[in-house]
Amino acid sequence: MAILVVGSVAFDTIETPHGKREKILGGAATHFSLAASYFTPVRVIAVVGEDFLAEHEAVFTRRGIDTRGIERAPGLSFHWTGAYAGTLNEAETLGTELNVFEKFEPKIPVAYQDSEYLFLANIDPVLQAQVRSQMRNVRMVCGDTMNYWIKDHSSNLAKVLRELDVLLINDGEARMLSGESNAVRAAAKVLSMGPKSLVVKHGEYGATAFFCNRSFAGVDDPSPFRAPALPLAEVVDPTGAGDSFAGGFYGYIASQPKLTPAVFRRAMFYGGVMGSFAVERFGIERLQDVSREEINERFNLFREISHLGDEEI
Amino acid sequence: MAILVVGSVAFDTIETPHGKREKILGGAATHFSLAASYFTPVRVIAVVGEDFLAEHEAVFTRRGIDTRGIERAPGLSFHWTGAYAGTLNEAETLGTELNVFEKFEPKIPVAYQDSEYLFLANIDPVLQAQVRSQMRNVRMVCGDTMNYWIKDHSSNLAKVLRELDVLLINDGEARMLSGESNAVRAAAKVLSMGPKSLVVKHGEYGATAFFCNRSFAGVDDPSPFRAPALPLAEVVDPTGAGDSFAGGFYGYIASQPKLTPAVFRRAMFYGGVMGSFAVERFGIERLQDVSREEINERFNLFREISHLGDEEI
Repeated sequence: MAILVVGSVAFDTIETPHGKREKILGGAATHFSLAASYFTPVRVIAVVGEDFLAEHEAVFTRRGIDTRGIERAPGLSFHWTGAYAGTLNEAETLGTELNVFEKFEPKIPVAYQDSEYLFLANIDPVLQAQVRSQMRNVRMVCGDTMNYWIKDHSSNLAKVLRELDVLLINDGEARMLSGESNAVRAAAKVLSMGPKSLVVKHGEYGATAFFCNRSFAGVDDPSPFRAPALPLAEVVDPTGAGDSFAGGFYGYIASQPKLTPAVFRRAMFYGGVMGSFAVERFGIERLQDVSREEINERFNLFREISHLGDEEI
Repeated sequence: MAILVVGSVAFDTIETPHGKREKILGGAATHFSLAASYFTPVRVIAVVGEDFLAEHEAVFTRRGIDTRGIERAPGLSFHWTGAYAGTLNEAETLGTELNVFEKFEPKIPVAYQDSEYLFLANIDPVLQAQVRSQMRNVRMVCGDTMNYWIKDHSSNLAKVLRELDVLLINDGEARMLSGESNAVRAAAKVLSMGPKSLVVKHGEYGATAFFCNRSFAGVDDPSPFRAPALPLAEVVDPTGAGDSFAGGFYGYIASQPKLTPAVFRRAMFYGGVMGSFAVERFGIERLQDVSREEINERFNLFREISHLGDEEI
């Protein structure tokens, strides 16, 4: 079933130890959409400027992604400039030109109204809340955020958190949001803020899902779940890895008839799979041309590197 | 089958956010032995001073550990003082009194000569090599080391590495030993130094096993394996977690008739299980009184939090 995603469609200028790329297509909604498109129909809400050309739109439409909600505005698209050094674990932001994003007011096309899954990518929580309030009949809401909103927009963010079935953040964000350094206590505190479940991404160490004590996916008090990441000899560009994880994770969930614990677990694996493809090349290069067979193969590899395989005994 | 372990039996003075303990029984060989004793017979080679009393020896003998190789020397036992703050990820060493350990020359009792498994705990690689050279007929050699030996005793350490079937170290040590920041490239480089396999511990994120390209456990070019760690709401004292991991890991391997990939994987899980018990209380408190049922239960919990459980679909 269709996912509606609201977030940034942007241009990125990125430098990593593997090279530099100027103004390549990026943004959270772009990475998310491409990753999710291998599993389920995706509809995008975003705003772009006059530098967003037919060739950029074709990146979406070639993957069957609905772009009717990508609004054109006078001026330039959002442009992020960042660099990675050393272990490539963290980006240094060198520039953030909001451009057309500064006055973004998400509008939901009529054709999107029946979307059953909503993804609120990392944007101003005020915008996330606006979209959420216009999509009251969705089956599920999943969202992302970042340090900037946690630090300086916490009351707006609090309203969004109460609406989420799944919050997807990383270790540092979970610590900042909760004020707790211990991962389990941090998760409990974040869950007490409203989300029914929490997926904490650990970069090269995978991700952990925590669930609220209330029943979730038909299970009372489900135990946490740890999904591995693939040990990679080479990370070319980590930009969008988290959004690609979210796309694989949520795309798989939306493709299934019903959310069960087994579906949630497999979704965590597909998230890791899409994240692992994303970082193999710059920007969205790899996410555009991966095949469903490669996705399945890598899913099996994730299982192989993490499962005991008791049948061998 | 029996494991012979050589390493420190010592006293630790430890401060963590949960309290302080003065001169409690510790040391790598102690944690290792206790953890391994739940799986297989263990024989210890170490040196202690006059402060090592009958009550301390009883900690070993109650668990059936052979202490005939624990040599008594005039003076005091090795004494480590350390403190943990914040996330309890790293100890700050406040004092290292080598005492009787300074002139330690490991002697192997005749009754230990038929040991089939050798564990070289974290001590001077010169001593590790001495013991190794006296135990030529073992089936398997597993070893640990630390930053201090990697930095300043690298040529001695290099000789030990060539003798190892398994090297157990943590992320930081793997990076230091290899000079590589990427985990996969670091592992490849460490494996090129000699060990047939490498288990890298990631603390709260579990551990990853890497294998040399040569055949290992009957498999050509086996894929890496990732074992989870249990998300813990409270870590009381991380001292000895790594040695307890090693004890569970190697103890399980020594208890099995044959090393297979499935045995290696289960061993990684048992390592995590024993490490997770160790940190629940100060020093060796928890490792003394855990039951085999609790170990089995926690093993199942490790499986539950990391396996897809496809049968539910």
